[in-house]
Formats: sequence, structure tokens, C-alpha cells
Amino acid sequence: MRTNETELLIEMFEAAVSAAQPASVIPKYLPAPPVGRTVVIGAGKASAEMARAFEASWTGPSDRLSGLVVTRYDYAVDCKYIEIVEAAHPVPDQAGTLAAQRILDTVSSLTEYDLVVCLISGGGSALLSLPSDRLTLDDKQQINRSLLKVGANIKEMNCVRKHLSAIKGGRLAAACNPARLVTLMISDVPDDDPDVIASGPTVPDPTTYADALAILKKYRITSPDTAISHIQKGVDETPKPGDPRLANTEAVVIAAPQMSLEAAAAVARKHGITPVILGDSIEGESRDVALVHAGIAKQVIRHGQPVVKPCVLLSGGETTVTLKGRGRGGRNAEFSLALAIALNGLPGVFALAADTDGIDGSEDNAGALVTPETLQYAAAKGANAGSCLDENNAYGFFQQIEHLFVTGPTLTNVNDFRAILIT
Amino acid sequence: MRTNETELLIEMFEAAVSAAQPASVIPKYLPAPPVGRTVVIGAGKASAEMARAFEASWTGPSDRLSGLVVTRYDYAVDCKYIEIVEAAHPVPDQAGTLAAQRILDTVSSLTEYDLVVCLISGGGSALLSLPSDRLTLDDKQQINRSLLKVGANIKEMNCVRKHLSAIKGGRLAAACNPARLVTLMISDVPDDDPDVIASGPTVPDPTTYADALAILKKYRITSPDTAISHIQKGVDETPKPGDPRLANTEAVVIAAPQMSLEAAAAVARKHGITPVILGDSIEGESRDVALVHAGIAKQVIRHGQPVVKPCVLLSGGETTVTLKGRGRGGRNAEFSLALAIALNGLPGVFALAADTDGIDGSEDNAGALVTPETLQYAAAKGANAGSCLDENNAYGFFQQIEHLFVTGPTLTNVNDFRAILIT
Repeated sequence: MRTNETELLIEMFEAAVSAAQPASVIPKYLPAPPVGRTVVIGAGKASAEMARAFEASWTGPSDRLSGLVVTRYDYAVDCKYIEIVEAAHPVPDQAGTLAAQRILDTVSSLTEYDLVVCLISGGGSALLSLPSDRLTLDDKQQINRSLLKVGANIKEMNCVRKHLSAIKGGRLAAACNPARLVTLMISDVPDDDPDVIASGPTVPDPTTYADALAILKKYRITSPDTAISHIQKGVDETPKPGDPRLANTEAVVIAAPQMSLEAAAAVARKHGITPVILGDSIEGESRDVALVHAGIAKQVIRHGQPVVKPCVLLSGGETTVTLKGRGRGGRNAEFSLALAIALNGLPGVFALAADTDGIDGSEDNAGALVTPETLQYAAAKGANAGSCLDENNAYGFFQQIEHLFVTGPTLTNVNDFRAILIT
Repeated sequence: MRTNETELLIEMFEAAVSAAQPASVIPKYLPAPPVGRTVVIGAGKASAEMARAFEASWTGPSDRLSGLVVTRYDYAVDCKYIEIVEAAHPVPDQAGTLAAQRILDTVSSLTEYDLVVCLISGGGSALLSLPSDRLTLDDKQQINRSLLKVGANIKEMNCVRKHLSAIKGGRLAAACNPARLVTLMISDVPDDDPDVIASGPTVPDPTTYADALAILKKYRITSPDTAISHIQKGVDETPKPGDPRLANTEAVVIAAPQMSLEAAAAVARKHGITPVILGDSIEGESRDVALVHAGIAKQVIRHGQPVVKPCVLLSGGETTVTLKGRGRGGRNAEFSLALAIALNGLPGVFALAADTDGIDGSEDNAGALVTPETLQYAAAKGANAGSCLDENNAYGFFQQIEHLFVTGPTLTNVNDFRAILIT
């Protein structure tokens, strides 16, 4: 089913991923080697690959380079000087907690002549989990689950998490003092906000115990007692902006959804196609986000707005799937299926939706491709698009017609990538 | 709370409505007077006003002009030659049914020398309701309610309605034969598709009993028995394209969402603001459509894409609210509330979402206004935006802060109007 159009969509995806590859971006942001030791720490789905890229391009003396980086199970890569530890995501486990403690211990022994390089990427919040004194991982998880259940937003979740943690919300940065600290981040969050990415372990925390308490009250969360009373007591606040312990720190976003969308846009322009970047942080239920994208695509065709074709609508961010059925499929496959249904074979419209980390949810595909023939192919195979969508079975749908888009883990993550090509 | 920004949004809304006003568009589309009689029929929220505009501009002899047009309660206007009947919307009542039967009887007596002018607008489907033999209005209403409840889209609803009706889906046109039939339509549907507007009483119906049955199965609607078995039997199919009884008919869309969005765009340009028309037929769950609009607004602010500010994002179409709570509010108020939450007080962003017919769902407002202060005002009044959204209580939310947008019935309808102004 590969056509010129789908090849072009894939070329755009590859450009988007390439722009976020640690090997291509880490070298541009290397700090100067210090007089003393260089300790590389970090956490996230892309952080092992970031560590490898760091080692490969580091010009300082390798005998003074060491470190410890936590990544997700199966995301480790071979490093020579930096130890890679695997831990659980999205629900933290003991492996992550032990690694977090070791990282804190390591940086606490450094001097002002040393340099800490912290490599942060999406997933780092769960991977670098260390409960405050007297709290257990279970306490934290219980609060997390309660917040998820009541629909707290990511900022609220992070505020509470930071105040139950011994490492988040700038505490890791405070522990690095007096060493110099440079944080390199790959963003997968809206606004690329450093204090949101991985719950900001190395940046000042503008939120307080009082804020956290207000959030718990707002959602009427009253257990477990240990966690609630920890926040009520409010001892040992997170470092705030201007905290002198964080004076010698710096945080840089080295890859982000927007940079990747721009790279895809450049590919489009090279082929004489007008790129329209709709947003780098589009959220919403996958199938409804698909309806809006379909509506915009139809507007291009019917009215030449917002631009005339040939063009490509590009967007990033993270959509949501509210499970109702029992099928398989991540949010990008679900987006693609809903889009195919909404477009209903509209001639000249092709699409690719895929997770830049190469894994759409918990399946083995990155996403799925849509062509004007998608529904027709499916019907010929006896697959009903509407029923598959009702069953949240987008994976099964696209598998049957061989429209799954499979890349394997890309070892980076700037969230979802969606491209709708209108020729 | 009126500011320059909200005044501008209202000016754009008014331009959109004005471009769809019967008095300004009907005169452009008058057919030539016939040798015989001219009978004006029609149904819809704008159809009484269309009848008045028709009378005012008709150049044929008035002694051979007569007719009967159905509109919503409180939407009647004074006409001299054409009788206006009021009936219930969105749930049909006996008044509409009786009028529908009278219309069928009237046109059935015409000859090839006569002309029927059918004035159709949104809402016509409920207003021109005549159940098939052996079905009651209750049967049809029960199916309608079930379809609304499960979130069926307008095409699905119409397909089922046509196959439970004695007048929809081209049956009215067949009854007009052998008279000439000219249908003038104000569109409030995607693609301005004549067979969808008011369930296409005067145009061929491409859908079948089998399609209607598939929709009922999809949503597991199994009662009332009379309606289900009527569709299962499938006797007396609607007229299909090419049906000779519809040979002497013509249908013209005289006002449509895109024309209204263009009128709003012209207002924006006049004020030096770049209009971006995203789509004239955007569909999807209101709150998720709001998230995507918010994502695009943020992209304008952060990255100057798809255009640089000052700009206004314009869209039309019809969003859907899947009811979960027990609050009050139509889809435009719900869109506005979800948008306000997603924007979270973002400076410089103002919005208006409203139904161009002046009535958002079954409330007395057309829609609601959003400003950067919306959440702050609400908090000061003790209103929690998130809880109101959970409860589908957008009306209550905006009422409390006096951000409801109230116009009264506009006597036309080109569906929803959304404008997000970014200054």
C-alpha cells in the first residue's frame, strides 16, 4: 500500500523523529568540561539514549566521567561510563526508587569543581520516584490514583507529587549544590514547561505545600493519612525560584514537539507542499480530535481554507482514549480510524498518526496510515470501521488491512505526530 | 463585561447572521412565475421569515399565490398570502403533523402548470413530521430520543427519520409531481447537502431501509416494536436519485455556514485582524472540539502559527454533547466552558460560541462569551468550572458570571458559530 503520498508522510515522520534524536541534538548542547568530575544523571524513556549520545560526543576526560540514568524496562542501551538502570513506567517500582536514592547520594558528595549533567525526558516522573521520609511508594501511588480518578489536571498532579517526593520539584537540584548543574530536556508536555517535564526534579518549584493541600481539599482526597499529614505539616518546602542552592543551575529544552513539527514542515516545503502547523500540544478525545482534523481537511478541499492544497496539516500533543470496548489499539491508531471514517474515502487525502517514541500505547506499532482506500480495503476484508471504533479496536482494524505503521522504539519521545496530506 | 474584544466578536456574529437573513438572500433566487398557481410550502426555524421575504419580493400575480409554511413556536411572522403554522421543535407535536398532512394534500392536487416553492431551513425535520402509516408520533419521538442519547450524528438521525416518515426523504417532492418544484434552502448541515437539510423532503434519498436498520443495530436500539418492524419490513422505499417523479425539481442552497463565516471574516479584516476559517462543518464532542480550538489558539500565541496575531479562528458546524450530568446548557455554552478551562485565563484570548438561530439547545441563550477573566470571575462567585462541565451545567456557569450571550431568535439558522479572537 506504499504510495508516493504515504512515503511522503513517512518521510515527514522520520524528519520529526530525527529532529528529536539524542544523537543529533545532544552534541549541540554540551556544556564545557569542568575542572573536577562530570556526573551524568537522568530519567526518562529517551534518557538512556541521551546518555549514550552524551558519551559519544563528550570531549572531557573519560576517566572523570561517570553517572547513573534510569529508563523504562527494555529501553536501556549500552553505555561505557554511565550506568543505565531500568525501572517501571507508568507505575513506579522499587528499582526506580533505589536508583533515585543512589542518584541523590552520588550528587550530594560533589564539590563546586564538579559538573552534573541531568538528562530528562518523558516518563521521568514515574521512573525517578522517591517518596518523602516516612512515606511509602504505596502512599504516593494511592494519591496518584485518586487524583487521576477525579480528573485533576497535570499541573495539579505535579504539584501534589512534588510535595510527596524527596527528589522532585527542584530537590534533586538542591542536592547537587555546590556542583554546577546543567539539565538537558526532551519535552513531551504542553508549553515545554521545565517544571512540568518529569515533575521538574532540577528546576525551582513555584508551588507550595499550601497549594498541594488546596488541591487535595478541592477533590476531597482524605487518605492515606500519612500522605495527608505530611502535606499538612509542610516541613522542608521545595526550592523556590531564587533559591541560592539553585543559583548555579541551567535547564535547556533540546528537543520538543514544535521543533519536530518544524522539521516535518521543512520536508513538506521541499516537496512543494504548504505545511500548516495547527498546534504542538493538541489534546482531547482521539476520535473527536480526528473529527476536527477531518473538518479542517474538508475545508481545504471545499473552500481552499485555511490554505490551498497541496498542503499538509501537522499537529502534535497527546490525545486521550476513553476505553469503552475491549479491542486493541493506542491513541494514534484510534485517531487514524476515526479520521478514516470521517473522511469516508475523500479523494486526495492521506494521513499518518503515530507516537514519536515508536510505540502507540502498549502495542507494537507506532501508529497507522490512512488513504482514500482505507475503508474500501477494510470492507473487502469484512472489517467494519464503525464497529472497530466502537470496540476501541483500531489496532485490529489497521492490522487487517496492513495499514499499521511500525517503527520499533525510536529511543526518543516528543509525543504524538499527526500529518494529513491533502493533494 | 462588554469590552472592545467581545464587542468585535458580537459584530462578527451579527455579520454571520445577517448574511443568512432571508430578506437579504431570497430576492436573489426567485424562480419565474408559472402559468398556473404558485404554492409556497416549507418548514424550518427560518421558513416563516423566508415566506415573508418571498411575498415581499414575488413579482407574480398575488391572487394565484398561496401556501402553508411550518415554523417553530414563537417563530411565526406576519404573512399576507402564505399561511404560517407554528409547531414544536425539537420534539415534534400534533400541530406539525397536521400541517405536514395539509401540505401533502395541497401539493397532491397541482398540475404541470403550477409551481411549488419549498422554503426549507434547519429544524424542518422536526417541524415537518408525519409518521409513516401505522406509526405514531410517540414511536418516532422515542427513536429520536434514543438516537440523541447515544450520540448518533445528524446523518444517522436523518437516515432513520426518513424511513419512519411519510413526507421526508424526497416523499414530499414525489407528491408535488407533476407540478414544477423549486426548493430554496438555508443550510445548517455539513457539506450543505440538500438531502440532509431538514431530512431532505424534496430531494432524492440515497439511504435505504437497510442503512436505517444498521444504525439502529449499531446503537442497540430495539424499541418501540412498531418502528423497528416498520424499518425491518422496508415497504415503500424513499425516492432514489433518478426517480422520474423528481425530474421537474430543483434545489438551491441560498444561505450556508460558509457564507456566514466569510461575512464574519470580512468584519475581522476590516478591523485589521486576520481571519482563519478552520471549517464550516466541524463536528465532534463539544468539549473536545473546544480542546482542539484551544490548542490552535495556543499555537498562535506561542509560535505565530498557523498565522500571526491579531487573528480570529472561525468555525461552523455542529458539535455534540453527550449528557452525563444533569445541568443545563446547549452545545455552544458547553464548548465555551471547556474552552475557558483549557485556556485557563490565557491573556489576550476572547471567544464567542453561539447558535446562529439564537437558541443554544433548549435554553434562552444563543451561546456564551469567554474572556481571560472568565475563570477568575467564576471562582469569585464560588462557581467551579470543572464541576459545572462535569455536570453539563454550562448554562448555570455562564449565567452566574453574566457571560451568557442572549440574542433571542434570529429567524435564520446556519448552525453554530465559533470565533476565537487572539489579540
